[in-house]
Amino acid sequence: MIFSVGCEIGYDVAQQATLIFNIEAMRGGRQRVVSERLTITPNLPADEKTSEESGNRYLRLTVPQGVVQLRYEAQIELDALHRAPAVIHEVPIATLPLDTLPFLNPSRYCPSDQLARFANRQFGNIEPGFGRVVEICNWINSEVDYLFGTSDTTTTAADTFSLRAGVCRDFAHLGITFCRALGIPARFVSCYAWQLKPQDFHAVFEAYLGDRWYLFDATRMAALDGMVRIGVGRDAADTAFATIYGQVMPLPIRVWSEAINGDKAEEWTTDAVSVTRD
Amino acid sequence: MIFSVGCEIGYDVAQQATLIFNIEAMRGGRQRVVSERLTITPNLPADEKTSEESGNRYLRLTVPQGVVQLRYEAQIELDALHRAPAVIHEVPIATLPLDTLPFLNPSRYCPSDQLARFANRQFGNIEPGFGRVVEICNWINSEVDYLFGTSDTTTTAADTFSLRAGVCRDFAHLGITFCRALGIPARFVSCYAWQLKPQDFHAVFEAYLGDRWYLFDATRMAALDGMVRIGVGRDAADTAFATIYGQVMPLPIRVWSEAINGDKAEEWTTDAVSVTRD
Amino acid sequence: MIFSVGCEIGYDVAQQATLIFNIEAMRGGRQRVVSERLTITPNLPADEKTSEESGNRYLRLTVPQGVVQLRYEAQIELDALHRAPAVIHEVPIATLPLDTLPFLNPSRYCPSDQLARFANRQFGNIEPGFGRVVEICNWINSEVDYLFGTSDTTTTAADTFSLRAGVCRDFAHLGITFCRALGIPARFVSCYAWQLKPQDFHAVFEAYLGDRWYLFDATRMAALDGMVRIGVGRDAADTAFATIYGQVMPLPIRVWSEAINGDKAEEWTTDAVSVTRD
Amino acid sequence: MIFSVGCEIGYDVAQQATLIFNIEAMRGGRQRVVSERLTITPNLPADEKTSEESGNRYLRLTVPQGVVQLRYEAQIELDALHRAPAVIHEVPIATLPLDTLPFLNPSRYCPSDQLARFANRQFGNIEPGFGRVVEICNWINSEVDYLFGTSDTTTTAADTFSLRAGVCRDFAHLGITFCRALGIPARFVSCYAWQLKPQDFHAVFEAYLGDRWYLFDATRMAALDGMVRIGVGRDAADTAFATIYGQVMPLPIRVWSEAINGDKAEEWTTDAVSVTRD
Repeated sequence: MIFSVGCEIGYDVAQQATLIFNIEAMRGGRQRVVSERLTITPNLPADEKTSEESGNRYLRLTVPQGVVQLRYEAQIELDALHRAPAVIHEVPIATLPLDTLPFLNPSRYCPSDQLARFANRQFGNIEPGFGRVVEICNWINSEVDYLFGTSDTTTTAADTFSLRAGVCRDFAHLGITFCRALGIPARFVSCYAWQLKPQDFHAVFEAYLGDRWYLFDATRMAALDGMVRIGVGRDAADTAFATIYGQVMPLPIRVWSEAINGDKAEEWTTDAVSVTRD
Repeated sequence: MIFSVGCEIGYDVAQQATLIFNIEAMRGGRQRVVSERLTITPNLPADEKTSEESGNRYLRLTVPQGVVQLRYEAQIELDALHRAPAVIHEVPIATLPLDTLPFLNPSRYCPSDQLARFANRQFGNIEPGFGRVVEICNWINSEVDYLFGTSDTTTTAADTFSLRAGVCRDFAHLGITFCRALGIPARFVSCYAWQLKPQDFHAVFEAYLGDRWYLFDATRMAALDGMVRIGVGRDAADTAFATIYGQVMPLPIRVWSEAINGDKAEEWTTDAVSVTRD
Repeated sequence: MIFSVGCEIGYDVAQQATLIFNIEAMRGGRQRVVSERLTITPNLPADEKTSEESGNRYLRLTVPQGVVQLRYEAQIELDALHRAPAVIHEVPIATLPLDTLPFLNPSRYCPSDQLARFANRQFGNIEPGFGRVVEICNWINSEVDYLFGTSDTTTTAADTFSLRAGVCRDFAHLGITFCRALGIPARFVSCYAWQLKPQDFHAVFEAYLGDRWYLFDATRMAALDGMVRIGVGRDAADTAFATIYGQVMPLPIRVWSEAINGDKAEEWTTDAVSVTRD
Repeated sequence: MIFSVGCEIGYDVAQQATLIFNIEAMRGGRQRVVSERLTITPNLPADEKTSEESGNRYLRLTVPQGVVQLRYEAQIELDALHRAPAVIHEVPIATLPLDTLPFLNPSRYCPSDQLARFANRQFGNIEPGFGRVVEICNWINSEVDYLFGTSDTTTTAADTFSLRAGVCRDFAHLGITFCRALGIPARFVSCYAWQLKPQDFHAVFEAYLGDRWYLFDATRMAALDGMVRIGVGRDAADTAFATIYGQVMPLPIRVWSEAINGDKAEEWTTDAVSVTRD
């Protein structure tokens, strides 16, 4: 399927500031950038780089005093891999690829050490495999209220676990935390999400199972095979759509994601879905 | 029943220090001090006072450099009130006695504000009354591991909730926290506990239900009608058996509690038990 | 001096709720209620009680669905005791009155155990006495930014210490925390504050020095001898102007405090000020 | 200089477990492994890999029930770069290499977001450059007590900031946190440390300044040019010398680091020291 995604972001800059954006769709695997256009107003030179490690695309701007606005629009073809959940197994620590190991470590918002006992009590006896991560998502969806205004940028998964409320980023952090506590590498994914209402940047997570990273969304607010990935990292600290060094006032933001053929998904897939490699 | 309880506590004091002890059995209600003896070695003058508010008995000593040792031994008659759980109701906030209201507030180790959503999700639909607090104890007993070395003097009930491990004080803090979140006044109780193994100071809690404070022990490690109450307060911060101002090294401690008639309880009571008033 | 103080508070109540207010001026000591009037609309029966322990005046209402509004207005005569700071000493733990000891314990928002090492490093070598608490206020005033929006109802003094920003309640919590860590009993005070801009309920603290409780305000936003005390307690958890059991929407609030003679204080006093007893 | 470093580590394994070690000296830059020998008893197959991203060397073992022991010994030549502190500048965010940016993000133990206001108040007006990071180390060394038993594996830099006590890992976390809050990339380094007393694995940090990573040790317990680097990462979560999946009991550990020529450093260098590249 082909998706038309994009965003408009702006800032009123008090005095010269450096801004790093991560809003462009990732390239590679089963996600193909058919076309894209980035407009910066005023027309400032931008330093564009793609991280070799993560594939995240960064745009770094040094912005003078005044208003700066970005518009990104792209057509993205997603050829998501669908697999039957039942055939996807967990990988023993002994044979996990080396580059997945950092995603077992606790991070700023995913203190998996603190929730390890609970994770093992609650999910330790479930048969390992894709289905266990689905159970984690079921638990989060059932036990945590999706509520704006209950969390902020300092909220960790341990906080969310106690508070029992949060937004998409908190749901993702909690899912990642439980996975890591069980020995399953897990990482944070920011994305454009088809059918998400209201439209905004979305946050989900990936767990490493079988031979690749599979997508999970504990909020159940969008279809897994309609997510255009922007950034991956250990948690939200690594995947901010904008990181700001300086004093700026954010202007209203607009985000969109539409299927080109306009099809509404009748039902969202319950397949295992991955777009990270061929 | 009559219990013989006591303790031996000592400190090696580096230089003059002030120590406040709360180790003597409370007087009044259905707990009668038949006899007691306190020995301080060396024979230092002690400032003894009973708090009007709580009934806690404090012993304040100013101790010179050297070793100080206390031995407290007492015979205590407990005429615990037993009631059928089914007849004990929760009291609406609108009619709670004024002096129970502070025990609805969050305290150092019982941040009931932080766990309010969970408490209401988990226990909010249970029929109010004594049985609801029993359910709280059941939940704690089932979901939290009793393990030494997992908590310390800074551990709050929110920490214990995440960690899922703790000792008697942590179990009490969690029970208190859930009660307060549900609008049930609850307070911390330190005590000598018959049949507790190994013998040590014990920590339980009281909830205000019907017309009085009833005892609860989420650890289920001792009989409710064999607890000789020492101190009550908002949480462990109010009921330390020793509070030390100065530099001291603690010596080994010994605590005991025996039934005079030597009867072993065949089974622990499941009645509602209260000793706070006639 | 005589002050005209008061407030208007209202709630839109979704369904029957119980509300406990603590908005009336305390009586006794050097604070005299010359006249006062409380209006509840609609005219609901109120349960009014004064805590023997604290002197706080509580007003408990059970409110049906709909809008409830309270208006409290009072004329208060303050005959604040002024003393020279230099003559006021700290009281050794060994001779502190028993009823001040709970105010040495850590509480929900004042975890004095966690900041004890810092407090002793920073303030331990300052000469004990009134001046040491002034130094604590100076430090807070200098090192913490007064900023709305940086703290919320879960913020502790340890959080404020790290964040270095907060509002009056956070300033008071930090002052209390440092005092307790140094062995000085300290408690939270809510009040009407003359010359506070903008007018609102104010939060300050009292430390027990010499033979009584003295007022301190680390925000330096109002005159110490123009504070009409409403509630005292261990921290903000004990002195909320409204505690709500049920679902309500707060309406805009109005608070005022004026000197009857309209005198502007030319300079705020630097005396030690106490109003707690004759 | 050439150093003879090594360690002996052992575990009593309750049932088959997977262990990942990071104890071998890094290769490359100005650190050359002259010779090394790793002995595993019993002689188990080991999966050895070096992370492309960090250069950390990992050793993964699947261990049956019983005792497993590792002995690593190596001769390492360090040709540390020495530079005059005064000529080393901070790099504006606008021109930092892309792969240093993740080291500006908050991590599990380095919540730089939480201490940002303090860092900017305390260090924001110091002239940027190598000297500013030295000032950060001076502050930590002066304001935090080096004390065993005050921190554990859950302690963050925000905790250490409040507690004012910790060990080498806590000192490093605090230094990293302040650097990141100021816009200076900083990362955690585990190492063998010549002249450290008592000998153990040591933890220091690196800040990216000028054109490379420079070493800093806020504990001041070892010479910067005698540190044989083992692992680098965002914080201690990335650089554990042993990560254990399974139930094991650690045996006593031994660590050593000696200069081959036996020279005692008369004075430790105050130069800027880097070993990361030629």
